[in-house]
Amino acid sequence: MAFLYLVSPSERLTPIYHRYSRIEDTEEVSIFQASGRILAEDIYSTENIPPLPRSTVDGYAVKSEDTMGASPETPAMLLKKGEIHIGEIPKEDIAPGQTMYIPTGGILPEGADAVEMIEYTEEISPYVEMYRSVAPGENTVQPGEDIKEGMLLIPKGTKLHARHIGLLAYAGITTVKVYRKPKIAIFSTGDEIVPPDSYPEPGKMRDANGPMLKAMFGGIGEILDVSPVIIPDKREAMEKALKEALNIADIVMLSGGSSAGTRDLVVSVIKSLPDSEILFHGLRISPGKPTIVAVSGGKPILGLPGHPASCFVSAKLIGTNIVEYIAGSNRQTPFVFIRGIIKTEVYSKPGIEEYLRVKIDFSTSPPTVEPMITQSGITYTLAMADGLARIPPEKEGLSAGEEVEVMLL
Amino acid sequence: MAFLYLVSPSERLTPIYHRYSRIEDTEEVSIFQASGRILAEDIYSTENIPPLPRSTVDGYAVKSEDTMGASPETPAMLLKKGEIHIGEIPKEDIAPGQTMYIPTGGILPEGADAVEMIEYTEEISPYVEMYRSVAPGENTVQPGEDIKEGMLLIPKGTKLHARHIGLLAYAGITTVKVYRKPKIAIFSTGDEIVPPDSYPEPGKMRDANGPMLKAMFGGIGEILDVSPVIIPDKREAMEKALKEALNIADIVMLSGGSSAGTRDLVVSVIKSLPDSEILFHGLRISPGKPTIVAVSGGKPILGLPGHPASCFVSAKLIGTNIVEYIAGSNRQTPFVFIRGIIKTEVYSKPGIEEYLRVKIDFSTSPPTVEPMITQSGITYTLAMADGLARIPPEKEGLSAGEEVEVMLL
Repeated sequence: MAFLYLVSPSERLTPIYHRYSRIEDTEEVSIFQASGRILAEDIYSTENIPPLPRSTVDGYAVKSEDTMGASPETPAMLLKKGEIHIGEIPKEDIAPGQTMYIPTGGILPEGADAVEMIEYTEEISPYVEMYRSVAPGENTVQPGEDIKEGMLLIPKGTKLHARHIGLLAYAGITTVKVYRKPKIAIFSTGDEIVPPDSYPEPGKMRDANGPMLKAMFGGIGEILDVSPVIIPDKREAMEKALKEALNIADIVMLSGGSSAGTRDLVVSVIKSLPDSEILFHGLRISPGKPTIVAVSGGKPILGLPGHPASCFVSAKLIGTNIVEYIAGSNRQTPFVFIRGIIKTEVYSKPGIEEYLRVKIDFSTSPPTVEPMITQSGITYTLAMADGLARIPPEKEGLSAGEEVEVMLL
Repeated sequence: MAFLYLVSPSERLTPIYHRYSRIEDTEEVSIFQASGRILAEDIYSTENIPPLPRSTVDGYAVKSEDTMGASPETPAMLLKKGEIHIGEIPKEDIAPGQTMYIPTGGILPEGADAVEMIEYTEEISPYVEMYRSVAPGENTVQPGEDIKEGMLLIPKGTKLHARHIGLLAYAGITTVKVYRKPKIAIFSTGDEIVPPDSYPEPGKMRDANGPMLKAMFGGIGEILDVSPVIIPDKREAMEKALKEALNIADIVMLSGGSSAGTRDLVVSVIKSLPDSEILFHGLRISPGKPTIVAVSGGKPILGLPGHPASCFVSAKLIGTNIVEYIAGSNRQTPFVFIRGIIKTEVYSKPGIEEYLRVKIDFSTSPPTVEPMITQSGITYTLAMADGLARIPPEKEGLSAGEEVEVMLL
């Protein structure tokens, strides 16, 4: 029984990836600007870190053989030769029977091969009593133990997180080659769609999908300023917009086409583009079904549903992985599912993987999952949901109290 | 049995939050710049959306009573009065016995109260046959069903995600008041620490924590350009740096003090600051134990461990929630744990909550969790880990094959 579910659209998408061209252009950026960027080179270490053995504790540097058999009853008694300071190379070595105080991170003096922790010692000037025997190398880091010269530190294609930035800094690598961000053109389509800052007539509605998609992909990609942002349901307008976008963008997304007529228009326009093909038309998920995945000249064109909830689910489950692939990432972001208990009975169409917007009550164990009362177009419930509960295609619904997998939002 | 674990440092931290001042300054930003920002006002809707009833399907607008008893054998036969176009207010109404074609999203004409899906109809000009009866309201969205005038759309303190941006755009709200980002001053301390772009002498090491912390908190906060970034182990230098930082920053973080002497210095300097108090000194976690959580004049001072892995764990488990609190967030980011099976036996100190760096093999079910061979200071394993396996304080380790909770990285 698994506790994590990685629903892997990457596997579903693998067969189509070869149709797409990935970003190959690179740019050099400072590690301070590299967070979230995708590494375009293998990074190798050029040195051993530490270069000399170091102590991992506060204590006394010793020849381990001098402590053999030491115990509280029969302590080893060593002559203290001074102190090592952090950040300095010890100026003296130790001879048999000698010891030096060493702080955590201090370099071992010549002659020492281990460190006795301060807890097991007592200084009785000029001697130090040691109550425990230490093995060779004990409480030390050996040269290259942290990083070995020539080792692969971070492979190409890695999305750089804070931890990687720390490692790069530690290894003295302050600029890295990353892939240029993919340029993404985002359109909304439909005669009924008006810009967010307008007061629509009753038959129109404001564009929710454009701003939402820009926020979703604005981190990993560079959102292009396209004009017009909203394309009317006219063949010429759509053709012109897509052609112009394909000249400057690496990825084109358009949402809308909630009616069958508009979807047909989008499909027909995409088919008319140079070197194009519709790779998928429709996903077996709900919401999100009327999704078109296409290619033109190696560039992805995603036709996302018009209803914001459908658009969101489709963009998340399909769009994210396609964008990551184009961007040069060697790893697809896994979707994290948790298990909970559904509070009320729900129905679902068989043959369709259904994603219900739900509220999650984490105070119970397992968490209680409550479906929100929704309709496909309801934007508010999408914003308020804690997660998307997945009803697998083979099920016709869930009974109250049944276990359910939920993707956290 | 729970499948998700929210280890809640927020609960541990709750008792100290009242010691801290939260950001109150706000700024007005466009929704296109608002992703990831924290909302500083309750957002209410100012209108009903949709303002008029709309169809949720492609089909025919009808008076529902006209379809009563309709079936494939006894279809209702209605006179087609024309077509409604998307984005337009219908110019005509329908009378009993009449119908109009309506696309998804189209406004219902006066007189119609439901929509018959196109799948259950056949047009036999000038009539349309309907094979199914529809209930009043069926396949329509009622006025205000998506958004009701005056309703609370998004509460103050919400971290704005793509879904919220979409909702704001849909509701016609194009600028929002957000909290100013907290200004964070990040220092590294220690005589052995040198900048990442230098070639350290053998006793020194480059600063991994500063760049790592900047990447961790650069999204939610504004990282200040402080000078010097690296503070030597000298009382005067540390006092001066902290005092200057507290004049301009909302939060001060310093990492380092791997030796007990430096830690004592940090504690003593913090105590000497105006209106200051050490709130915690040491966490029962490993790595991450030597963490100092303090306050001066309502501002958090976090003394994080020097070892990068310890610094990371402490910053993640404690720092994140403190920064979110100061930033004005009404919700603490939960930490997501999954369950796996540990591959090899591990030991752990009782009384300490231990976090092991692990690789996770998701191809097995449940996932297989393999501890990496680590030492506290090893920066490389931190960068390469897939997760942190948690050994609870009451355990002295785990046997191979035992269940383990893992925080995903």
